Amino acid sequence: MPDDSQMPQEPQGDDALPSGLAAPYVLHRRIRFGESDAARIAYTGFFPQYALEAIEDWFDVWGGADWYVINSHEGWGTPFVHISLDIEAPLIPPETAAFQVWLDKVGTSSMHFRVEAFRANGQKSFTCRAICVTARSNAGAMKSIPIPDRLRARIDAYRRACGMDDT
Amino acid sequence: MPDDSQMPQEPQGDDALPSGLAAPYVLHRRIRFGESDAARIAYTGFFPQYALEAIEDWFDVWGGADWYVINSHEGWGTPFVHISLDIEAPLIPPETAAFQVWLDKVGTSSMHFRVEAFRANGQKSFTCRAICVTARSNAGAMKSIPIPDRLRARIDAYRRACGMDDT
Amino acid sequence: MPDDSQMPQEPQGDDALPSGLAAPYVLHRRIRFGESDAARIAYTGFFPQYALEAIEDWFDVWGGADWYVINSHEGWGTPFVHISLDIEAPLIPPETAAFQVWLDKVGTSSMHFRVEAFRANGQKSFTCRAICVTARSNAGAMKSIPIPDRLRARIDAYRRACGMDDT
Amino acid sequence: MPDDSQMPQEPQGDDALPSGLAAPYVLHRRIRFGESDAARIAYTGFFPQYALEAIEDWFDVWGGADWYVINSHEGWGTPFVHISLDIEAPLIPPETAAFQVWLDKVGTSSMHFRVEAFRANGQKSFTCRAICVTARSNAGAMKSIPIPDRLRARIDAYRRACGMDDT
Repeated sequence: MPDDSQMPQEPQGDDALPSGLAAPYVLHRRIRFGESDAARIAYTGFFPQYALEAIEDWFDVWGGADWYVINSHEGWGTPFVHISLDIEAPLIPPETAAFQVWLDKVGTSSMHFRVEAFRANGQKSFTCRAICVTARSNAGAMKSIPIPDRLRARIDAYRRACGMDDT
Repeated sequence: MPDDSQMPQEPQGDDALPSGLAAPYVLHRRIRFGESDAARIAYTGFFPQYALEAIEDWFDVWGGADWYVINSHEGWGTPFVHISLDIEAPLIPPETAAFQVWLDKVGTSSMHFRVEAFRANGQKSFTCRAICVTARSNAGAMKSIPIPDRLRARIDAYRRACGMDDT
Repeated sequence: MPDDSQMPQEPQGDDALPSGLAAPYVLHRRIRFGESDAARIAYTGFFPQYALEAIEDWFDVWGGADWYVINSHEGWGTPFVHISLDIEAPLIPPETAAFQVWLDKVGTSSMHFRVEAFRANGQKSFTCRAICVTARSNAGAMKSIPIPDRLRARIDAYRRACGMDDT
Repeated sequence: MPDDSQMPQEPQGDDALPSGLAAPYVLHRRIRFGESDAARIAYTGFFPQYALEAIEDWFDVWGGADWYVINSHEGWGTPFVHISLDIEAPLIPPETAAFQVWLDKVGTSSMHFRVEAFRANGQKSFTCRAICVTARSNAGAMKSIPIPDRLRARIDAYRRACGMDDT
């Protein structure tokens, strides 16, 4: 369950930056019964999906670059080249876990995300590191492109809001 | 789509080791339309699930320890503490990809798997490293246990079949 | 994205009925990029899952019977015996669709749900009808039981809140 | 797990009909640990996906119309307008269930599928009825088209192989 209080104030025009949003971005999401397995904890195979959902929301809310729109209508995307998870504790339905999004490092085309997942009781569940690159997408044939200016401006705004340096 | 030719000859008794199985174990699995996304490639969020399916099959075919059975009926499981993916190329339906399972390192309670994913044309898609530990499972409260003897004997048999040293 | 404004005021004691909740219950949920397919609409295979998520939330918020808790700790569940969907329009990321839950008919052990799914623009996407029965659960061997009194009281409260007759 | 023995002999040219395939088409597919839930049976939300996988395979093997290819490259698809399931018994990992595909009725643009799901022990698990229509697809705006001749020829061949009348 995303925190609706963080839903974007729509920016005015392409250059407007998000304002008034809490940082870091946190996706609050219920762990579902259908995601539990016979061990009666959420199946590990869903953990990367939780992290990617949080990053997807970040792109929409802060990045101004919804994955569906950029891939379907603008001819570019953000394919992932690396994903890793270090898991400390299970997630158990029906808890609502918190997925906190950090943007640790940004290169010419690459964005290094870190998602910290917390259980409802505050315990750390996992840390996910995920690196994506901006790329022209064409059904599998991808060619990296520099991060578009509009997105970079928003990345910088996010990192400032998180108390980090500009890229 | 598991390669049915690799389905297990059921061992006679607990101590029988699998024989006549190809090594390394390879899961052949079709990439499904429902797993593609609007970028017209398989959604990255499913990649860890593909790797886990291959490892699940390894546990069944070679390990003699089906996840459902050990978690539901025997009170133990193999929770994952680390999963990482390095992604080189997309997977695209309806190709049947090959997921090759290696067991790089084995500790007292830990098993370090590596899954190499190949596209239908032989191109590497990704490498997944995944570490699990044998543990008593009790809905989230887990306590690691040494790898059971029966499983260790099968691990050793697998590593020998792969041309690797005993653990 | 569930409508957080509808999250439950926790009832005081087993017999307390929910109050102050909007009726009918509506799950507001974002359609995710990973749920789109190469046709650039949400894959139909996820539609029943959306409907079941709405019903799952109903059981938690209104029914006071979380699926995880009743299945894992109380020895009963609500297995589904029928699910049908009539589909009128696709769902397309990143829209937030609304899944409205109705409880059309209730028998001794059976609950006939109807979930009406609406696109962000108000258009009907699909109607799902789903019938579940209350049953002792034991890993596949199920035996129907009468709807527990506590749940029935809440069913009646819900139907009253929706302007319907008691069961 | 599709039955690899049923993988298609590639037809020679567009007009070649499949031959030597078993009918009805049966998808043999392992029920996965990650598909089980805390009730220790496969989560009902996956049942429609199993049925759709069987139909997807039918389209590939018998229909000569892979969903990914027709949607991504040929500008048409087979959107579903109705799906229903009547469920008689659970599916439980690690069993390999059988999903038998029947094509009960065919109209100008519509195909009425029926998928009979059987447990490993032969017990019926569920019957799924699913109706799709051939349509020009354009990201949500769909317009039905008559079933293409090539597909209809294959439909007729399939129904004959199943001992049914031509459409």
